[in-house]
Amino acid sequence: MITLFHCVSARSFRPLWMLEEIGLPYELKMLPFPPRVHARSYLDVNPLGTVPALFLDDAGRMTESAAICQYLAARHSPGVLDVAPHEADFGGYLNYLHFGEATLTFPQTLILRYAHFEPPERRQQQVADDYTKWFLARLRTLEPLLAERAFLCAKRFTAADISVGYALMLAEHLQLSERFPPSIAAYWKRLREREAFQRALEAQRAAARAQGVPEMPAPDVR
Amino acid sequence: MITLFHCVSARSFRPLWMLEEIGLPYELKMLPFPPRVHARSYLDVNPLGTVPALFLDDAGRMTESAAICQYLAARHSPGVLDVAPHEADFGGYLNYLHFGEATLTFPQTLILRYAHFEPPERRQQQVADDYTKWFLARLRTLEPLLAERAFLCAKRFTAADISVGYALMLAEHLQLSERFPPSIAAYWKRLREREAFQRALEAQRAAARAQGVPEMPAPDVR
Repeated sequence: MITLFHCVSARSFRPLWMLEEIGLPYELKMLPFPPRVHARSYLDVNPLGTVPALFLDDAGRMTESAAICQYLAARHSPGVLDVAPHEADFGGYLNYLHFGEATLTFPQTLILRYAHFEPPERRQQQVADDYTKWFLARLRTLEPLLAERAFLCAKRFTAADISVGYALMLAEHLQLSERFPPSIAAYWKRLREREAFQRALEAQRAAARAQGVPEMPAPDVR
Repeated sequence: MITLFHCVSARSFRPLWMLEEIGLPYELKMLPFPPRVHARSYLDVNPLGTVPALFLDDAGRMTESAAICQYLAARHSPGVLDVAPHEADFGGYLNYLHFGEATLTFPQTLILRYAHFEPPERRQQQVADDYTKWFLARLRTLEPLLAERAFLCAKRFTAADISVGYALMLAEHLQLSERFPPSIAAYWKRLREREAFQRALEAQRAAARAQGVPEMPAPDVR
């Protein structure tokens, strides 16, 4: 049985969405955000204090959300959600898996931190503005590609779309989605209409309610 | 022929190191850092304006350094620098590939930016301090593992060690290596003593000299 430690709409949404795409059974353990502040005992589960933490019988603990998506795809969905080394788009697949996190998500965590989560005297609007600009500039480079393709690579929906798709979900929480170029807005609509995406949203809602965790990631992030 | 666009000691050092580990022929094109400021025409090569950009005959352009390492390992070094899906440590391998970039390198780019690269009136020492603390806390989680193992996973040197190894190289540039715990300092020594690592250092030195690019990443980063 797979166990996933998750905070509502945090990066751990990626493996949750992937589990729903594959249809694997899993146990969802909800935590308040950020867990290293509000659930100190979680550091015994994951010394990093971050989510996701995914426990697998044979792979130990995994903590990087895009890596987990690739792992689950390779082990449980070869040729479908995974792209194999012999396929022409293997390079693009790996690139977008990393791009979604390192290039599109990390900059948004700076906006979250310095415009929302830090106490007022430690907020840094300049940094939030710098990385809003950074994120939108990097995101725009996807526009020509997505004007011609339904998904990022291999002519099908893959784990790479989950990696980038989560960055778009976070951007919507930060009210940046109004600034998506048209082809990216259309892509984001395609992604969120997927049944597995909707099931993942419902799974976190139900688990948050059952486990007494706030359903919003933080009161000041709309 | 593989073409790699590279700035001295930037993230693009990862694919350079990997190419030397595998022994593949390549062409190294040097750029001043950051290229989007000092070499505007590079935006035609890579609209992101970032390094690395790696061009392959069959995979188009790749821009994410850890993804490139995984790609080259899977295509050119299966069972050696790559870890295959059927191996027990496949999950750990993917996790450390991402961890090296998203968890250990990105925070250091904030130190670079807000303590060194920005003009004085835009520097933010608080942000540099926040992410120094962040980096060192995340790094420490590797200490127990590296006290027992020579390399991160699969009982051999792999692309994952290049991903994390580059983060340690950047930390040395930022004078953070004095604060490495003992097992991590010993690991970093093992990595930089590798012949391929030394060849990569020499290759960037020679190419920088031949192409008239400064050999230091920036005058104010020691």
